[in-house]
Amino acid sequence: MRAAIFRNGEIVVDTMPEPKPEAGQVLVKTLACGICGSDLHARKHAHRMVEMSRYFPGRKPMDLSRDVVFGHEFCCEVLDYGASTQRRLKPGTRVCSLPALVTPTGPQGIGYSNDNVGGYAEQMVLSEPLLIEVPNGLAPEHAALTEPLAVGVHAVAKANISGGEVPLVIGCGPVGLAVIAALRMKGLHPIIAADYSPARRMLAEKMGADIVVDPARSQPYATWAEHATMSAEEKAARPPFQAHLPALKPALIFECVGVPGLLQQVFEGAPRDARIVVVGVCMETDKSEPMLGIMKELNVQYVLGYTPDEFAGSLRWLAEGKVDAASLVTGRVGIDGVAKAFDDLANPERHTKIIVEPWR
Amino acid sequence: MRAAIFRNGEIVVDTMPEPKPEAGQVLVKTLACGICGSDLHARKHAHRMVEMSRYFPGRKPMDLSRDVVFGHEFCCEVLDYGASTQRRLKPGTRVCSLPALVTPTGPQGIGYSNDNVGGYAEQMVLSEPLLIEVPNGLAPEHAALTEPLAVGVHAVAKANISGGEVPLVIGCGPVGLAVIAALRMKGLHPIIAADYSPARRMLAEKMGADIVVDPARSQPYATWAEHATMSAEEKAARPPFQAHLPALKPALIFECVGVPGLLQQVFEGAPRDARIVVVGVCMETDKSEPMLGIMKELNVQYVLGYTPDEFAGSLRWLAEGKVDAASLVTGRVGIDGVAKAFDDLANPERHTKIIVEPWR
Repeated sequence: MRAAIFRNGEIVVDTMPEPKPEAGQVLVKTLACGICGSDLHARKHAHRMVEMSRYFPGRKPMDLSRDVVFGHEFCCEVLDYGASTQRRLKPGTRVCSLPALVTPTGPQGIGYSNDNVGGYAEQMVLSEPLLIEVPNGLAPEHAALTEPLAVGVHAVAKANISGGEVPLVIGCGPVGLAVIAALRMKGLHPIIAADYSPARRMLAEKMGADIVVDPARSQPYATWAEHATMSAEEKAARPPFQAHLPALKPALIFECVGVPGLLQQVFEGAPRDARIVVVGVCMETDKSEPMLGIMKELNVQYVLGYTPDEFAGSLRWLAEGKVDAASLVTGRVGIDGVAKAFDDLANPERHTKIIVEPWR
Repeated sequence: MRAAIFRNGEIVVDTMPEPKPEAGQVLVKTLACGICGSDLHARKHAHRMVEMSRYFPGRKPMDLSRDVVFGHEFCCEVLDYGASTQRRLKPGTRVCSLPALVTPTGPQGIGYSNDNVGGYAEQMVLSEPLLIEVPNGLAPEHAALTEPLAVGVHAVAKANISGGEVPLVIGCGPVGLAVIAALRMKGLHPIIAADYSPARRMLAEKMGADIVVDPARSQPYATWAEHATMSAEEKAARPPFQAHLPALKPALIFECVGVPGLLQQVFEGAPRDARIVVVGVCMETDKSEPMLGIMKELNVQYVLGYTPDEFAGSLRWLAEGKVDAASLVTGRVGIDGVAKAFDDLANPERHTKIIVEPWR
């Protein structure tokens, strides 16, 4: 079969053997697979991902001298079953799955693995128990958004929202947009979102942002503060020793950029007692001023992934039309177009999510 | 009056004018004032504290070309009152106070200020509304431990303990010991504590640590894991998708050292989903691997100070004998001894808390 393969730091097109479904596994045809920002990062910083695996003894790191097929945001069609399967869904059924294989020694990732081919290939194998049927005739290229939406849903869940917070989303790439969509489903308003790109700010509004900020024109934290003033009751309810502090509602800041220096910028801009959820994946060593964190008593929650429930919920919300999936998909390419799509995604004006359709 | 003054980066003894109590203020005689690790840090990194103040527009930074008298852990005796005071406590009464002055424009710190002299001087002024009478005839050198104990009480309060956590305290200096004492008062067991110094480990046990670790001999996180195994019920109650993870109770790690690189060490050692409370005050820029935080979904809560209630509670607990204050005080010096005491505190075998008694 044909695949877009990560080989020697580049994405190249080549053929490779079709995968064989083992016991409990299902052979599927890849219908659609989103290109994730992490894939772009991984192309550049794959060695860092390998380095980090030494802290996780159970995890098998990628061997960068061997081929890897990226792609962990996929929608597929059932082709065939391996041994010991229940075959509940008939061939032709469209399915999504968490990007993992269930094995006797625990889950194994799909997409950053030498063994488990990801969605930039014509076929994959998945674990039967993880399959979820795509409901409501949702288009495959929209069902493929389940995974990135689940990232936002999980980030919002990990924020432990109690209701009084005013959220600020820094960065409106696919991760930031998913966070905004999840915040809107949670009913937390106003949602304030910042991005340098006009196209991204427009999308942020479509996803549910109430106020968008161009950081080149105004300070996102100042705009946040304008919309986070306490009510008279909230102000009166503060303990006396806090009476001299600015009367602001609790800040909930989502860092959705993931480059070095960004967290320090958030530390500088954040108000006292802010909760910061780090959703952007910064793969490089980062520097910050702990004194700022200390003097403001900041809380930093790093997040990754999602639970199976959050994943299933995300697919359901997409199928129910609760998230404007069509606006997020800005391009569709075949296997030959993957390398160029990686480059094209550098332009936020032009692209948000490019979907790989390996059958093209 | 005489004072140990921070001048040109050194602690020198000199005389200075007695302070005059203004409206709402009380003139006090300093009976006892603890030397805080932050004072040692500040002697070395005062310029960093000044730099950081630019992020807090309301705060007046220290002018390092002018004198500063450190000392914010004090117990005093009422001498005289300024105008507009209620004079509830008669002269001679022993009092503690948060190290702050109440002013019409908000609180002003005592101890890192050119204007408000700290406890390394014979006399100070305090704000009348903040005075708390020392109960039960508690000795001044023990009442002076109220402030550092409150730091531990606050750190534990900010940890939002739900009951199932197993705490690990990294560093058993005065801050770590206060955290241990506060954890014991909270009834959370087992308390695991790590320090390279045998004397500090012994003190940790006196304060309430159930297990102490010498990091030179065994890995604190491995020892922690030995004592954090889930019960069969807890194990059975986990969601299926976590069944492959080590069956460990929630980790609550208190970073009580405050030097660059320490947080990264905690990131490396911490188990998945650990909550980290940063109590140690690292005044330098720090580096860490965000990828580790992300892959483990760590939570970092930076903390500083305490509330007035936590401060008052700490004094009460000391007066009720709930904390073994006598073990913590390892030295008492007059004003002439402050500079040497700063150096002596570098030896954890010899010293924990040195109390300055300016009247000596």
